Amino acid sequence: MAGSGCLLYFSILSSLLLFSATITEASQCAISGLPFVRNISELPQDNHGRGGLSHITIAGSALHGMKEVEVWLQTFAPGSRTPIHRHSCEEVFVVLKGTGTLYLASSSHVKYPGTPQEFSIFPNSTFHIPVNDAHQIVNSNEREDLQMLAVISRPPVKVFIYDDWFVPHTAAKLKFPYWDEQCLQSPQKDEL
Amino acid sequence: MAGSGCLLYFSILSSLLLFSATITEASQCAISGLPFVRNISELPQDNHGRGGLSHITIAGSALHGMKEVEVWLQTFAPGSRTPIHRHSCEEVFVVLKGTGTLYLASSSHVKYPGTPQEFSIFPNSTFHIPVNDAHQIVNSNEREDLQMLAVISRPPVKVFIYDDWFVPHTAAKLKFPYWDEQCLQSPQKDEL
Repeated sequence: MAGSGCLLYFSILSSLLLFSATITEASQCAISGLPFVRNISELPQDNHGRGGLSHITIAGSALHGMKEVEVWLQTFAPGSRTPIHRHSCEEVFVVLKGTGTLYLASSSHVKYPGTPQEFSIFPNSTFHIPVNDAHQIVNSNEREDLQMLAVISRPPVKVFIYDDWFVPHTAAKLKFPYWDEQCLQSPQKDEL
Repeated sequence: MAGSGCLLYFSILSSLLLFSATITEASQCAISGLPFVRNISELPQDNHGRGGLSHITIAGSALHGMKEVEVWLQTFAPGSRTPIHRHSCEEVFVVLKGTGTLYLASSSHVKYPGTPQEFSIFPNSTFHIPVNDAHQIVNSNEREDLQMLAVISRPPVKVFIYDDWFVPHTAAKLKFPYWDEQCLQSPQKDEL
């Protein structure tokens, strides 16, 4: 099994780089000029102002000209988490490493997310978030990083953030651009 | 690094199961009744009649009700390959393990794919296939499996297959359903 260690390598590499924001490509916004086959370990990563996060856009709207899907590699340090948020797109997760908790509020409450369901997530697991359902992912493991591939439709993602599960949907705060701030312009309100 | 071996496990598991067609879920077509967080190693896998292939639909149209994206885990034994084909959707690959060759015919020839460009693919690499560009992926390594995650938009995929790179686009053969034959019905011609 000469090659089976590659995934291990992939995982370790991301951990080592977790808190750096190394930019190894000439530009973070270049659609042209990138190699057609790209080495993920050489792609730009950033924490986008969120402690404990490493985000890499593997295939993205602003960076690579994707129009229908985006793929991200995200690593969460122990204790770190996404905000409580929703977005108007499908999202699929593949857990590569680590464990954590998914909190998911289905659409049964019309005015606010409400108390979420709780799911354990684990290595080699997958799940998807229904369009517009509020959710949060927490690395609840005290010692190990949580690393996931995330796939979304309808890029670039527009994220609505809730301070807690009982904030009305209409009071959730839009954050756009969410990633790739330096490449995307904020849309007019009526574009959303 | 207690959990960093999980990817290795993931990879080895798929190799061990490569030539079996174990169906561990009660139904391959069930949208409801599946656990929300699914263990990928327990999902149905099949070779769909293609020697050397293991295909697992991680998140799919027929199986899980996806409408905008699908995610597959595919493992190719040494020497095995996809057909030369095109599809009217975006496709992103993440190479988890192994090496191989991507052949890609850009749209410069109007009537047929023509001689493709050749790219080496390697562990931890990523690339995407432009909509409708004919392509083929070959595990050109004699000893090691090639394992990739594939993401497509516009599921379920409708694939047009070419016998060689000089077959006219109009003579490429439609294969639909491509995966999940038992769950999807062939569309009428004017639906395509």
